[in-house]
Amino acid sequence: MNKVEPRTLAGFMELLPDEQILFNQMKSIIENTYKKYGFLPLDTPVIELSEVLLAKAGGETEKQIYRFNKGDNDLALRFDLTVPLSKYVAKNYGNLSFPFRRYQIGKVYRGERTQKGRFREFYQCDIDIIGDGELDIINDAELPSIIYEIFTQLGFKDFTICINNRKILNGLFENIGQKENSTEILRIIDKIEKIGKDAVINELEKIEVDKKSIEKIINFIEINGTTDEKLEKLEKLGIQNETFLQGLQELKQVVKYIRMFGISDLNFKVDLTIARGLDYYTGTVYETFLNDYRELGSVCSGGRYENLAEYYTDKKLPGVGISIGLTRLFYKLNELNLVKVEKKSISDVLVIPMIENLETPILVATKLRKLGINTEIYLNNKKLKTKFKYADKLKIPYVIVIGEDEVNSNTITLKNMESGEERKIDIEKLDEIKL
Amino acid sequence: MNKVEPRTLAGFMELLPDEQILFNQMKSIIENTYKKYGFLPLDTPVIELSEVLLAKAGGETEKQIYRFNKGDNDLALRFDLTVPLSKYVAKNYGNLSFPFRRYQIGKVYRGERTQKGRFREFYQCDIDIIGDGELDIINDAELPSIIYEIFTQLGFKDFTICINNRKILNGLFENIGQKENSTEILRIIDKIEKIGKDAVINELEKIEVDKKSIEKIINFIEINGTTDEKLEKLEKLGIQNETFLQGLQELKQVVKYIRMFGISDLNFKVDLTIARGLDYYTGTVYETFLNDYRELGSVCSGGRYENLAEYYTDKKLPGVGISIGLTRLFYKLNELNLVKVEKKSISDVLVIPMIENLETPILVATKLRKLGINTEIYLNNKKLKTKFKYADKLKIPYVIVIGEDEVNSNTITLKNMESGEERKIDIEKLDEIKL
Repeated sequence: MNKVEPRTLAGFMELLPDEQILFNQMKSIIENTYKKYGFLPLDTPVIELSEVLLAKAGGETEKQIYRFNKGDNDLALRFDLTVPLSKYVAKNYGNLSFPFRRYQIGKVYRGERTQKGRFREFYQCDIDIIGDGELDIINDAELPSIIYEIFTQLGFKDFTICINNRKILNGLFENIGQKENSTEILRIIDKIEKIGKDAVINELEKIEVDKKSIEKIINFIEINGTTDEKLEKLEKLGIQNETFLQGLQELKQVVKYIRMFGISDLNFKVDLTIARGLDYYTGTVYETFLNDYRELGSVCSGGRYENLAEYYTDKKLPGVGISIGLTRLFYKLNELNLVKVEKKSISDVLVIPMIENLETPILVATKLRKLGINTEIYLNNKKLKTKFKYADKLKIPYVIVIGEDEVNSNTITLKNMESGEERKIDIEKLDEIKL
Repeated sequence: MNKVEPRTLAGFMELLPDEQILFNQMKSIIENTYKKYGFLPLDTPVIELSEVLLAKAGGETEKQIYRFNKGDNDLALRFDLTVPLSKYVAKNYGNLSFPFRRYQIGKVYRGERTQKGRFREFYQCDIDIIGDGELDIINDAELPSIIYEIFTQLGFKDFTICINNRKILNGLFENIGQKENSTEILRIIDKIEKIGKDAVINELEKIEVDKKSIEKIINFIEINGTTDEKLEKLEKLGIQNETFLQGLQELKQVVKYIRMFGISDLNFKVDLTIARGLDYYTGTVYETFLNDYRELGSVCSGGRYENLAEYYTDKKLPGVGISIGLTRLFYKLNELNLVKVEKKSISDVLVIPMIENLETPILVATKLRKLGINTEIYLNNKKLKTKFKYADKLKIPYVIVIGEDEVNSNTITLKNMESGEERKIDIEKLDEIKL
């Protein structure tokens, strides 16, 4: 028979089992943390009507969409989890309780040019809090506490959640008469980390921002010091613009509550350069950096938006959310050997029968499973050496060999595969076993 | 602004949060059971090259495929998890440990005609055990013990795992000189439950099976009694055909080991009418029925196959596997109100602050979360009644209201929302709380 070469598309992550175990542990930490804070699960389809999915999209995104016809339908694969959320909330408005706190962890699709570390199919792990008409600013402070919890659980200590408020920037632009240019200016100053101050000035000059305004913008961006010093310096700018003052007020409140949520100033700061792309966010914005690995870029970003679902409904639905791009994050951390491992294997114990009669091995495995211990019985007729090698390759931490002696004495020997240490245990007392 | 109507494609399940919570609990039970037996996780792409995905497919399946071009690539969405597994094992053969035990829970896509209870996007929950060259028959007996565990965990008692062996049927056909017709005959007798004996005879006559052979087939199918009686009657047929005898021998062993795995005869039986479709399975086959709800059809099916990946590799890879079509199963069980509920909510506790200063509410929530108790703080400024209504609608079982009195006395009152019972707890002693 002619064989087809078994291959996987470029840009699609497909892991070997030992890496998949690590990936799933990261995913579980994120999901369990979202649940710990009371977010409700959502699972929307991967395929949607293009008309629905692309109600807002345009430009770069639209080019990347996987779009096709099936029967009479013009279909598309979701490219994020926010648009499906918008649709969902608009569609089910009457059946939801607000504030609607939902998490969704799922694959999204973007046909980007493939390159190392970029994926066309990748997991996003999102939470959003949606208000019905209004949503208190304190919600903007709860999300950083969840980011903090997740990255702490993932084994990181030295990370910084950077916070800003888009109204401060917008108000500044209004104040210096550059409101029309604000989207463009935001886009430019968002790049200051990457391209540096001079290049930013240069780009601002190119779009004909006058020298005085550029000076104000740069002075503003260069506000430095501790979070409290920055807030104070912002105040001292004396800008009498309503948007600016509202943004400053919000930022102060968010800072106050973030501290109340127990996040130390070591793990968050006000960073006035963060704008988070174009016109989506309208208030608080977040980015998160692993300080020893700044080159990863932001590992968790998000912010506040005025109106979630305006393309589908007249209802005003303000929200705040964050997203973790898990596939890329895992890829990078794994490359750096930074995936914190609680368990390297699925099975905790491999039971190896060395007798024909499997009653005792099955009895032992059943008892262990009842204790919540994942247990595999090696069911194939191989040499003992092969069976141990299997345990070794799968990194199973404990092995129990059961032969005639064990059956006759009604005891088993639990072998720690790493230390080599062996423990004899009475089968009757297996219920008290601690690994 | 013109609004787009927010809608979801027909045949795509999209649940409200309270149903999603139930769905996820079913999914967790299945996944945790698979892990408890030591199956390794796999997560293959939803999109594959059509050439790879359709190496074997044909006929009905191919028509249902979501297939499209992106750039130069002819792509398709996976329609099951078995073909991706075949590809994966062939591709990663050198990096896997055999027997390779993997589980995969993921969405698959089939553009079937939509009708109530049929889905175009649905979850399959699969386990397979793949041997390198050979795989002991005892593996065929372990899978029913996992089916048993899952449906017991899902809250069912009266279910039957039906077992047969394709070699018995094939051997019979060889013996009566109907080998060429065997696929067709299998297809027909597979329908006996649905269409009855007379219609089966009728269809067999139509394909020109002679009367004597039909009689033998029907006599065979009508073998009845207990599992042991059936095995005995099979033996007594005295059929001297190697395939038949091998099948009988395998079936006897599977029965013996299933009992050893602790499955009572109340929950499994030999059913000689089960063939599981066409030419894929070559040995043991399974179907599982909820006896009070036979109309659901088989809720967990599978079997033994000779060669997993013959379209991709020369390596001989025999395997045995089962699959649960979770989306349809959930839909049906939910309709019948049969989804066993451990928890109806994500949050165990809703903390309701009735004061400006949130320090105590946050302290309380943080303590509870550290104990593994999912806790939400109601963060929006609403009336107490609205907050209680929210807890009620989300079915959160406990509420803690925190006002001035509670802060001053350093105690909280835990209210059981169902019974109305209230318990006062010293905040210092919150670590000892049991819900």
